[in-house]
Amino acid sequence: MTSIDLNADLGEGFGRWQLTDDEQLLSVVTSANVACGFHAGDAATMRRVCDLAAERGVRIGAQVSYRDLAGFGRRAMDVPPAELAAEVAYQIGALEVFARAAGTRVSYVKPHGALYNRVVHDEEQAGAVVDGVRLADASLPVLGLPGSRLLELAGKAGMPAVAEAFADRAYTPEGTLVPRGHEGAVVSDPEAVVERSVGLARFGTVTSHSGARVDVRARSLCLHGDTPGAVALARRVRDRLQESGIRVEAFA
Amino acid sequence: MTSIDLNADLGEGFGRWQLTDDEQLLSVVTSANVACGFHAGDAATMRRVCDLAAERGVRIGAQVSYRDLAGFGRRAMDVPPAELAAEVAYQIGALEVFARAAGTRVSYVKPHGALYNRVVHDEEQAGAVVDGVRLADASLPVLGLPGSRLLELAGKAGMPAVAEAFADRAYTPEGTLVPRGHEGAVVSDPEAVVERSVGLARFGTVTSHSGARVDVRARSLCLHGDTPGAVALARRVRDRLQESGIRVEAFA
Amino acid sequence: MTSIDLNADLGEGFGRWQLTDDEQLLSVVTSANVACGFHAGDAATMRRVCDLAAERGVRIGAQVSYRDLAGFGRRAMDVPPAELAAEVAYQIGALEVFARAAGTRVSYVKPHGALYNRVVHDEEQAGAVVDGVRLADASLPVLGLPGSRLLELAGKAGMPAVAEAFADRAYTPEGTLVPRGHEGAVVSDPEAVVERSVGLARFGTVTSHSGARVDVRARSLCLHGDTPGAVALARRVRDRLQESGIRVEAFA
Amino acid sequence: MTSIDLNADLGEGFGRWQLTDDEQLLSVVTSANVACGFHAGDAATMRRVCDLAAERGVRIGAQVSYRDLAGFGRRAMDVPPAELAAEVAYQIGALEVFARAAGTRVSYVKPHGALYNRVVHDEEQAGAVVDGVRLADASLPVLGLPGSRLLELAGKAGMPAVAEAFADRAYTPEGTLVPRGHEGAVVSDPEAVVERSVGLARFGTVTSHSGARVDVRARSLCLHGDTPGAVALARRVRDRLQESGIRVEAFA
Repeated sequence: MTSIDLNADLGEGFGRWQLTDDEQLLSVVTSANVACGFHAGDAATMRRVCDLAAERGVRIGAQVSYRDLAGFGRRAMDVPPAELAAEVAYQIGALEVFARAAGTRVSYVKPHGALYNRVVHDEEQAGAVVDGVRLADASLPVLGLPGSRLLELAGKAGMPAVAEAFADRAYTPEGTLVPRGHEGAVVSDPEAVVERSVGLARFGTVTSHSGARVDVRARSLCLHGDTPGAVALARRVRDRLQESGIRVEAFA
Repeated sequence: MTSIDLNADLGEGFGRWQLTDDEQLLSVVTSANVACGFHAGDAATMRRVCDLAAERGVRIGAQVSYRDLAGFGRRAMDVPPAELAAEVAYQIGALEVFARAAGTRVSYVKPHGALYNRVVHDEEQAGAVVDGVRLADASLPVLGLPGSRLLELAGKAGMPAVAEAFADRAYTPEGTLVPRGHEGAVVSDPEAVVERSVGLARFGTVTSHSGARVDVRARSLCLHGDTPGAVALARRVRDRLQESGIRVEAFA
Repeated sequence: MTSIDLNADLGEGFGRWQLTDDEQLLSVVTSANVACGFHAGDAATMRRVCDLAAERGVRIGAQVSYRDLAGFGRRAMDVPPAELAAEVAYQIGALEVFARAAGTRVSYVKPHGALYNRVVHDEEQAGAVVDGVRLADASLPVLGLPGSRLLELAGKAGMPAVAEAFADRAYTPEGTLVPRGHEGAVVSDPEAVVERSVGLARFGTVTSHSGARVDVRARSLCLHGDTPGAVALARRVRDRLQESGIRVEAFA
Repeated sequence: MTSIDLNADLGEGFGRWQLTDDEQLLSVVTSANVACGFHAGDAATMRRVCDLAAERGVRIGAQVSYRDLAGFGRRAMDVPPAELAAEVAYQIGALEVFARAAGTRVSYVKPHGALYNRVVHDEEQAGAVVDGVRLADASLPVLGLPGSRLLELAGKAGMPAVAEAFADRAYTPEGTLVPRGHEGAVVSDPEAVVERSVGLARFGTVTSHSGARVDVRARSLCLHGDTPGAVALARRVRDRLQESGIRVEAFA
């Protein structure tokens, strides 16, 4: 029987501001990418999300970011590697307190936003993220794009490198994401998203924007929770996966 | 043979800004109160200070603060207890990463600045600090003023409550500090500071500003490192303590 | 013919986060309290709100706050008066750029959150706010609670002191607000809020929580826009005021 | 008689942290690039520096930066142009309050750190800075590197574009700066710096690192004040310029 992990960003409010519907998302996903205070996520929110996640058996991951609350971590920054590594470790450590207090542990690391995109190609910053994870715990899995420098360097460093796919994003025939902003980059038809999810989970393939089937081997699917209808779609994806005989569970 | 711990605030720079002479202070103190990013202390500085402290066998403590970089944590804030507890835990967790990476652990917690002063009398905030420490590690010692609500509540919660004294501050006949701003609140004569240190360490007493000897039982002396001449004075205190047959070592 | 000003807090998002429905509120109020970046309000949002307000003829006021994004300016802070004055001026100046670029000016100042509450009684901080306003422009009106130290000191300094009232808050027989948290502090019945608005605007009176009519002389009513249904209620208040023959316009 | 402006970065402390010796620098320079709170510079410091500058007849400029206190504005950031423009305007407006309160005005704008370097070549960000200045005051001079996109776009927008030179930096035969990190990029011999200052001011030329004389037409020389000996060197430059019959005064 095939299985797939479902991950989503959670705890992305800050103080008075809310963004993600954490309660609802935690009833859908198997892995929660919890914001650690650098792009979003105050301490009290981190605690609450960890408590809820632990209660529901959802695995907790550290969603690490550039230090940029004003830009929500979406602006690429030329952070020197030693600083970036230390900032990554800082965020993991801060979240670990709340994961432990909830009776569990931080179980993986996933970069957020501009950092996520940067470490696809940027060797220096990818290396810094790996260094930061190693400072915190050299055995932590790292979640990212298949083929990214991040996963490559994490693998070399002996960390489990976990590839993820996006059912709501178009893929090129080479198996990379069609960049946002390009026509058709985002798949907006809910039924198409659901079907692509099943295809990715069962066969490790997806139909590229040219119509050809392309391999995208991923152990996790990334769901979104910050737009209207997103949680409903996420739940529909989960239901269809299960109806299709695919086990929805955290990656091994 | 009597022993005493010497503690000082370290790592109180932020990014481009330096404040404390961390290298020098680490050759004097036995316990380093490391800033955790809320009033001072960026991640790279925290890492560096932890590495240096571990190398020299100086114990690492989390110097937790209100979230107030602009005010250096010196402005009292009415932070709701649940938020304050989470913020305290967050800071301890962030520092713990660097302490562990350096082969050691965060070994105590000391509030900074306005929070330090507030938890002398404020039951609610003192309780929140204790809750925050407990979230991180219920066995961590808490450092503060003798007679403070903080130490009282920490003790009730089963944490080691460690009292500290200030050789460069005047005391009332009741054994409390003469508030800053009052005449004679600060002892500026270096030789007097040195002698008071020895008295505090050996006899647990100090001459109050009225001239009477008063009991101040403390297991640690707090030294300052952020003013000109401070490091030299700190070293002189340490030397005199040792010459007086007092062992300078981290509290048990 | 009687007239009344309607004010509300606007632009209280920050980066990715939204809070207030600025577009809708700007079709209701005559005075917009625009967040200036210290408790909320990034520069791009400030610009957008100023442009919209100017377009619709809504007056722009600087909603100044403690520097506390994490606490949304709701946590009282012991900011030294000279720092507080400078921070108030800084915020007014930053907003003034966008008001001028939109062809208008910052036309009044209103403290936010914990600062608003503090300057009701705290002489030192009230004086600091007045000093800050004076640094920016000694002729700017100051908006606050009738009887507050803020309005008293603003008046003494020669600034127009503009009192405001809250139609959705209970009043004591002495004409002060029943503190939040006390039973019945908030008036939740929409029709009651509408009627109280008319009474406050026309007669300068409101029924206190003891049932007695009490004088509350105010030139502005504060409406809320950050809760579900709030904008609809605000619009209903405005409509009823106008139907009652009360002119809804910015204070003179 | 030839004249030259001397500019330096001032007010680059933040809260408890000091960096620049503002008092001393204000006795040397004719133009003060005052930090506006985004990379350094709290409101109280901005006020103090503006008061001192006005008192001494030193012109005040807004030293605008990316929003990056932790990185001191030295980390390039991909800020979307509309946000960057608004952030630039925000900073100018905030400083303007203190300049006006001191009886003067913000008289020019100079980008700081990573933003300064970025707008040499980056058309989009250079345009955003120009837009930001225009939002604040379309007549404000902009200070930058000769040949930079910033000065080019400022000139096209009708703003005075003021070129500056660095007496302590090596130049290529093409008249551009030898990048930091390259051998010999920084001229460390004080006498050489002084002589190059005179050459730049009098002839608009400097000896390039290949030995050839190269044209560098600049109306201002940038002096540094954040390293030991920097203020003494700055004063020596000023003295030598004056002894050489060059008038040291703010650019027209």
